[in-house]
Amino acid sequence: MTTSTLHITGMTCGHCVQAVTEELTTLDGVEDVDVELVAGGTSTVRLVSKHPLDGEAVRAAVDEAGYELVDD
Amino acid sequence: MTTSTLHITGMTCGHCVQAVTEELTTLDGVEDVDVELVAGGTSTVRLVSKHPLDGEAVRAAVDEAGYELVDD
Repeated sequence: MTTSTLHITGMTCGHCVQAVTEELTTLDGVEDVDVELVAGGTSTVRLVSKHPLDGEAVRAAVDEAGYELVDD
Repeated sequence: MTTSTLHITGMTCGHCVQAVTEELTTLDGVEDVDVELVAGGTSTVRLVSKHPLDGEAVRAAVDEAGYELVDD
C-alpha cells in the first residue's frame, strides 16, 4: 500500500471535502481518502492506494473537483 | 408574485449556494432563488414566489440545507 499526502487550497466546507473525496476516489487503485479541512487555507489530504499514483492524474482529479493542488 | 429577502450565515462556497437553492426551490410556490454569497459572512437570498411564504417553512428549508437564517 502507498500513502500520499496532498495539499489543496480553495476548500471551505464539507461540500468541498465531499467533492474532492469523490474525485480522488475515482482514481485507479485508491482505497481511502482522508481530508483535514482548513477552511480558507491549505487543506491536507491523505490518500491510501494499492500502488503509487500518477501525479498528473491526481492533479487532474483535484482540478476537476474545482480546487488547486499545491506543490510541496 | 412575492419577493422575499433572507439573510443566511454559514455559507462559504458555490456548493453551499447550490444546497440552499435546492432546498428553497422545493418550497411550494417558489419560482426563483437568487443567492448573493458572502463567504464567511451573511449571505443574501432573494426568493420569488407565487404567494407569500410561510416563515417557518423557509426557516426549516435553510436549516435542512445546513445553514442558519438570521432574523431581520
